[in-house]
Amino acid sequence: MKSKLLRNFVLFVLLTYVIAPTTLLAEDGYRLWLRYETVKNSMLAQDYKQIVKQVEISKSLDNYDVIKNEISSALTGMLSGQFSLSDTITTKGTLLIGTFDCSKYISQSIDPDIIAECGSEGYLILSTGKSDSKQIIIAANTSRGLLYGTFHFLRLMQTGQSLENLSILQNPRLQKRLLNHWDNLNGSVERGYAGKSIWKWDNLPQNIDPRIKDYARANASIGINGVVLNNVNSQAEILRQDYLAKAVVIADILRPYGIQIYFSVKFTSPKQIGGLDTADPLDPQVIQWWQDKAAEIYKIIPDFGGFLVKAYSEGQPGPQQYGRSHADGANMLAQALAPYNGIVMWRSFVYDLSIDSDRTKCAYLEFVPLDGKFDSNVLIQTKNGPIDFQPREPFSPLFGSMPKTPLMMELQITQEYSGQAQHLVYLAPQWKEVLDSDTYANGPGTKVSSIIDGSAESHSISGIAGVSGIGSDRNWCGHHFSQANWYAFGRLTWAPDLKSDDIAREWIKMTWSDDPKVVDTLSEIMACSWPACIDYMTPLGLHHLMHEGHHYGPQPDYVHPVRHDWSSTYYHKAGKDGIGFNRSSTGTNAVNQYHPPLNTIWDSPEACPNEYLLWFHHLPWSYRMKSGDTLWHQLQTRYNSGVDEVRDMQKMWLSLSGKIDHERFEHVKKRLQLQLENAEIWRDTCLKYFGQFADKSVTN
Amino acid sequence: MKSKLLRNFVLFVLLTYVIAPTTLLAEDGYRLWLRYETVKNSMLAQDYKQIVKQVEISKSLDNYDVIKNEISSALTGMLSGQFSLSDTITTKGTLLIGTFDCSKYISQSIDPDIIAECGSEGYLILSTGKSDSKQIIIAANTSRGLLYGTFHFLRLMQTGQSLENLSILQNPRLQKRLLNHWDNLNGSVERGYAGKSIWKWDNLPQNIDPRIKDYARANASIGINGVVLNNVNSQAEILRQDYLAKAVVIADILRPYGIQIYFSVKFTSPKQIGGLDTADPLDPQVIQWWQDKAAEIYKIIPDFGGFLVKAYSEGQPGPQQYGRSHADGANMLAQALAPYNGIVMWRSFVYDLSIDSDRTKCAYLEFVPLDGKFDSNVLIQTKNGPIDFQPREPFSPLFGSMPKTPLMMELQITQEYSGQAQHLVYLAPQWKEVLDSDTYANGPGTKVSSIIDGSAESHSISGIAGVSGIGSDRNWCGHHFSQANWYAFGRLTWAPDLKSDDIAREWIKMTWSDDPKVVDTLSEIMACSWPACIDYMTPLGLHHLMHEGHHYGPQPDYVHPVRHDWSSTYYHKAGKDGIGFNRSSTGTNAVNQYHPPLNTIWDSPEACPNEYLLWFHHLPWSYRMKSGDTLWHQLQTRYNSGVDEVRDMQKMWLSLSGKIDHERFEHVKKRLQLQLENAEIWRDTCLKYFGQFADKSVTN
Repeated sequence: MKSKLLRNFVLFVLLTYVIAPTTLLAEDGYRLWLRYETVKNSMLAQDYKQIVKQVEISKSLDNYDVIKNEISSALTGMLSGQFSLSDTITTKGTLLIGTFDCSKYISQSIDPDIIAECGSEGYLILSTGKSDSKQIIIAANTSRGLLYGTFHFLRLMQTGQSLENLSILQNPRLQKRLLNHWDNLNGSVERGYAGKSIWKWDNLPQNIDPRIKDYARANASIGINGVVLNNVNSQAEILRQDYLAKAVVIADILRPYGIQIYFSVKFTSPKQIGGLDTADPLDPQVIQWWQDKAAEIYKIIPDFGGFLVKAYSEGQPGPQQYGRSHADGANMLAQALAPYNGIVMWRSFVYDLSIDSDRTKCAYLEFVPLDGKFDSNVLIQTKNGPIDFQPREPFSPLFGSMPKTPLMMELQITQEYSGQAQHLVYLAPQWKEVLDSDTYANGPGTKVSSIIDGSAESHSISGIAGVSGIGSDRNWCGHHFSQANWYAFGRLTWAPDLKSDDIAREWIKMTWSDDPKVVDTLSEIMACSWPACIDYMTPLGLHHLMHEGHHYGPQPDYVHPVRHDWSSTYYHKAGKDGIGFNRSSTGTNAVNQYHPPLNTIWDSPEACPNEYLLWFHHLPWSYRMKSGDTLWHQLQTRYNSGVDEVRDMQKMWLSLSGKIDHERFEHVKKRLQLQLENAEIWRDTCLKYFGQFADKSVTN
Repeated sequence: MKSKLLRNFVLFVLLTYVIAPTTLLAEDGYRLWLRYETVKNSMLAQDYKQIVKQVEISKSLDNYDVIKNEISSALTGMLSGQFSLSDTITTKGTLLIGTFDCSKYISQSIDPDIIAECGSEGYLILSTGKSDSKQIIIAANTSRGLLYGTFHFLRLMQTGQSLENLSILQNPRLQKRLLNHWDNLNGSVERGYAGKSIWKWDNLPQNIDPRIKDYARANASIGINGVVLNNVNSQAEILRQDYLAKAVVIADILRPYGIQIYFSVKFTSPKQIGGLDTADPLDPQVIQWWQDKAAEIYKIIPDFGGFLVKAYSEGQPGPQQYGRSHADGANMLAQALAPYNGIVMWRSFVYDLSIDSDRTKCAYLEFVPLDGKFDSNVLIQTKNGPIDFQPREPFSPLFGSMPKTPLMMELQITQEYSGQAQHLVYLAPQWKEVLDSDTYANGPGTKVSSIIDGSAESHSISGIAGVSGIGSDRNWCGHHFSQANWYAFGRLTWAPDLKSDDIAREWIKMTWSDDPKVVDTLSEIMACSWPACIDYMTPLGLHHLMHEGHHYGPQPDYVHPVRHDWSSTYYHKAGKDGIGFNRSSTGTNAVNQYHPPLNTIWDSPEACPNEYLLWFHHLPWSYRMKSGDTLWHQLQTRYNSGVDEVRDMQKMWLSLSGKIDHERFEHVKKRLQLQLENAEIWRDTCLKYFGQFADKSVTN
């Protein structure tokens, strides 16, 4: 009996040892949106305290410690620790956290249909009990679901919401919600602007950076359930025994947070580290090598997620070298992983100009004919647009054109083409534009989001990936506001229908302040940041004018010595006769890769929205825009607007002086000044360059 | 009177100091086809001696020394020096060499119409006089023509022909007959397999290699009248003052041989060595820079030929970087050279895959729209085929498609893709196939040769260029038989209608022996060498399977990491479904760049000649050839034939043992053994590679 008593012993403690009082903590960004600041509204705090008077978490959960620690930290921070915590579900608890399985009390309180609806990752947050004995139940079928529910509950408190009459049932819209780390084994991060890789491979498996656990918390809090550890431009060594031993350590840390690990694999691994003289996917020895490798991995990482593959693209090897197709390659890997429920994420980011001279058409031409030829555990990972994470692109025409194949969308969180960690650019509106785009694949209303969540085409598997720019910098992302992109990505993987402004406001309240002036101002800054970036970089459908290699500043005159499709001039095609890439039916006809009526609307310069005008059309400088303005004048106007918008962002930020902690205020202030200067350089460089063609022909 | 007597003094000397008796000379190949061996047929020697009893060369010729020295050397060698030589034309001379201008006696002997017909480079060789005072007159309008006539006359003797009743009037069919040296300023030679550059820039202008004069003799003997000194992948430094001073020395040596020098220029020279910040061809400063540079060059090299330009191709810069066209760039340079009668040779060797994914189509797409836009002193230098000097290619579709523009054909003498200096491959039949191809541009009979000589399209300027592989190796070309390609190139520039076997026999007699068995055997070896090379390397229209970079051995599985059109797989497209590049109307439709009926004939696998089958078609392994054979079996047959043919060449060579000097016999014997081994490697590598796709599907 004593042991049981001990087990049920009610903790009533100030858990100050878990986390120091937040006011003493440096506002260096390390805590992300999990700052758990003291609730300042005393009425609200009072209500909250009532509800957490007796928190009961089922001890039998395999992630009990994770949930308990998060709850403890959060309540300690927000409510100064005035709560009690028990590891047994009873009728007396005010906040009950447990799976339907582990608590008869909980399962009996809930309609079985509701339980079924929670699925494998969903959760329920339900107010029950009478007015004098109110209870909130957080319940789920799985411990992972429970963790998500816990974070949801905490977010309600973090954002100052009422906990009365809760009746929340949530399920993720997408199954595989991944971050892709472009981290190299030497610690560098491709397109990372926040320091070195957080994995620190060299120190593993002995020394483990504690921040990996904080990284896991952050991801779990927004629903991320998978992480590709290494760069898509991969190194075969990741599959070597010594690296597998290192990966086990990471997998073990992430597992309780519901996060699986994945590898980017090099297609020629059997040659490079396997001692074979081929990597031909139809070669029996190669097939065997991958099957053995899969068995070796799953033996030590039983919940290993699978492989991400960049094949035959930008120098990465692929099955084409052996006369095989993407399907041959992907299926061979898929068959090795299938016995363990692993998946293959095969990227469609290919642009072999020997297939078509218009880069935007290549992936479609290569992949659409393979629709239906991929094994059931293969997802085709497709970037949002047909080029490469430009400030704005129309959605990739693959979405809606491969109905027999689950497409996994790849977004880029790290701001490779949008100012990197120097510019404040909130990307959720960009992603929303794509997710909400109507493909018309099954007639009007077939949104891109309904393609990737599998609903439009009845797929049993779905996914989304975000290229992380996370690094070892104290604030994780380089720019404090880049954290918002990580946050928003996670939130959208779970619920693509969320509004970007709602996500921004959530994030602001948790990350900065719940002061309405701060929330309003920051949400306004964030809302105008993406349109500003488009305007000062690549307005009116222009794209890829970035400096070669680092992709930061403008280089409209850049010509790659041997690959013309790596030249800025390839994309803008500016000359005496005009500007823009003619992808209409009189040009490369890329427009025809889209379903009607898009192929018709975008085909006509008059009907095509200004946003995509020079993406689809090459037009004379004197072309009359719908506004009556000439194209050249409109282009100048847009570049100037972009700069003005950054100046407005800067002003808004400065108006918050005193309302933001000094450390972060100064940090962001400096970056905004740099962003303004950069925007001016973008404008001046591009207008000077284009002006040499345009000025002579057009006066207005 | 005494001085006049002295001047007219008849030399009757054994000119042994000019050149050592040939029998003592090592047969190391240095003397090329100008060996001037003793005439062994005593009757013939007797006749020849009669004719050269009194050779009279007009002293007033500006190349008097060149002609006199060549005659002296030749007659000393062939007739053991039994001749007399005077520098004044008289009625008593037996062989008179002078221009119409400088000798009243000669001009009065010839019909004025004939004189006019000789033009600026042609010549007349005429037997005159009565039977007891026979004379042969070599006459021309220019000293250059006279030199060509002299070499023609000597060739008649070298090849053992009768000198009775000569009545020869020859004019070159092409005006600009150039060697292109891909020599770098550091002395290396791109695609050169015979040692370092003969220019030895570092030693100039002080130290001059005497072989440059022998190089000039060899070129003049076959009609070459221009030399581009440096690599098309050029260095701006060639236009620097110090290099111009070096070039002056070379120009001065070559001038008496009728050879002009040209430079390959880098389009960005004004930036690289001119201190400007642009090379935009429409920029006034850039225009001025090139005009100043032209003036500077012509001041010290008054007969400078002009510029060769590789622009916007394989990493070379071009006007496109400034939004300008090939025409903008070429015309700007042409205008700088025009005041001095200089020309621009602007290469059409461009394959920007952003224009079309089929490399063979790119040049046409870029250049045909510019037809008529080039200045009159611009020639578009176009390789024989649409790719790059493959063992066999159909002719470039530019020939016959730019009627308003003179096209200069570029052939490759150095055997980049045909075994380099290791394989015996006589290329004249390859060039003849192209020159004799009917473009059907103006209906049937519009041969490629009639396009490039200007006759079909009435151009006032014409040209042809051969990429030289000449180097400092003692035998000039690496392989003794590679000299034949230099020789044949020269002969064809003068007379594209010559038969390749006739050229071979001329060359053999002069270079090896006039023994009929040697002549017959070597001409047979040479005749079968090109078909053999095609068969063991790239039969049935295959192309570009060569090892990446050095282009020597086979590498059918090669995949370039970033440029797929630099992959072997791009060209053969072998896979389970078959092999070949579909350039028919169901594929890239490259076939439609040709005039009817070629576009129809080549479009159908049934009508398309086997030679171009896999160039234009992708066909299943089981495809039935006209012979009834399957494609796969036929491919194996051809590869095997290629090896067998080399074995035959080897046997034929060995049959000449004792009839060829030891030094060269052993040299060629070793190379033929290597060639046989190489051919086997080619066959085995390609059949193994293709076999992995084909074997399973086709048994016969």
